[in-house]
Amino acid sequence: MKRRTFLTAAIATVISTKAFATNFIANEVKPFSESKFKILALVFDDYETLDLHGPIEMLGHMKDVEIKLIGATDIVPSYQGPRVLTNLPLVITECDLLIIPGGLGTRKEIDNVILLDWLKSQTEVSTKVFSICTGSVLLAKAGILDGLNATTNKMAYRWVTSISNKVKWHSKSRWVDDGKFLTSSGVSAGTDAALYFISQLRGLDEANRIERLAEYSWNSDRLNDPYSVKE
Amino acid sequence: MKRRTFLTAAIATVISTKAFATNFIANEVKPFSESKFKILALVFDDYETLDLHGPIEMLGHMKDVEIKLIGATDIVPSYQGPRVLTNLPLVITECDLLIIPGGLGTRKEIDNVILLDWLKSQTEVSTKVFSICTGSVLLAKAGILDGLNATTNKMAYRWVTSISNKVKWHSKSRWVDDGKFLTSSGVSAGTDAALYFISQLRGLDEANRIERLAEYSWNSDRLNDPYSVKE
Repeated sequence: MKRRTFLTAAIATVISTKAFATNFIANEVKPFSESKFKILALVFDDYETLDLHGPIEMLGHMKDVEIKLIGATDIVPSYQGPRVLTNLPLVITECDLLIIPGGLGTRKEIDNVILLDWLKSQTEVSTKVFSICTGSVLLAKAGILDGLNATTNKMAYRWVTSISNKVKWHSKSRWVDDGKFLTSSGVSAGTDAALYFISQLRGLDEANRIERLAEYSWNSDRLNDPYSVKE
Repeated sequence: MKRRTFLTAAIATVISTKAFATNFIANEVKPFSESKFKILALVFDDYETLDLHGPIEMLGHMKDVEIKLIGATDIVPSYQGPRVLTNLPLVITECDLLIIPGGLGTRKEIDNVILLDWLKSQTEVSTKVFSICTGSVLLAKAGILDGLNATTNKMAYRWVTSISNKVKWHSKSRWVDDGKFLTSSGVSAGTDAALYFISQLRGLDEANRIERLAEYSWNSDRLNDPYSVKE
């Protein structure tokens, strides 16, 4: 880890620990089980419900998986209202998959320097990073997607792409997989992208097993994007 | 309200209030805003993530809607692990729409007499009742669906239908709407049924607006059921 990154991580940890001490009231902070596939999902006020819970539905049916929520506060309401409880404050946490949902809350979080600093350090200790919807705007703003192929919510396409011209944005794709970073289009596209990720990680049979279990109709062709944007 | 029903409701309220006093630690218990469309969603341990959050995604985009979670404890983990925080303990609460998700947790809850008694009283003060997946097994066990048309999860079809032969079970239908009771097939079918409900309540244009907003591909034909069961 470079010195600057280490310092950023340390600052984020200190700030989070303070937030934890004053604000975390109902959480058990336990590390991931070493034997599990570790999924960490960021939540923030006004995240979009299905951005988070669509992928969690599918990924959570894989064997030997553990899912933890991470956020700046212990209680986090979605845009639709219901609240989730985080497992971890914003500390840097090694994981196999980092999930970044989108939603109206990104309009505020895009100016949250602490969150963006955490994101930079957190992506370094995450094997794979998976953004859904406007979650990619946070990665783009932090400069994490510079030079990479990515996509985002097609209803908010002009706003997201205006934030960074250093990203190779795709206007017609349900998801884009560029090495470490998997980015999906809006809301429901995250569920399709999650099944794609499962197929890559555990094979197509496993993705199809989970698709059936959820009585889902998986759009498995990323170029079949009914909401593509004309540029 | 008949005397027996009133007594059942009163017992459930007393039991819940006790649970509330000892167990509710982090909740603000506020009544619904009178001017809103009131949606109450039951949660229990090991509910299925998408059963709840798929419908909440779609219904939560309607204008003037308020969604509250209700359950026996304040913190409720889904089968996939992440935890939601309830807004209300199991008290009888008037609402416009009552949501009953399914999931592995129904195997235990089907023998929870307190929950089933609450369900009987709660359905009486709910204008519409919407079950997803194996959520219908709780309604069936409580005798609430006797004589009515309904459907359920197709992967657990034989188990659910074995619980009550007084229900007219449909083996090929993404959802069944029989007056007060809307029942959907497994997991993802709840999202399609939610859009159907929106189209009935607020018109097809509103359902299509929300479908686009979520970049979803709505299966709007209930008889187009890829997971139908041969009987």
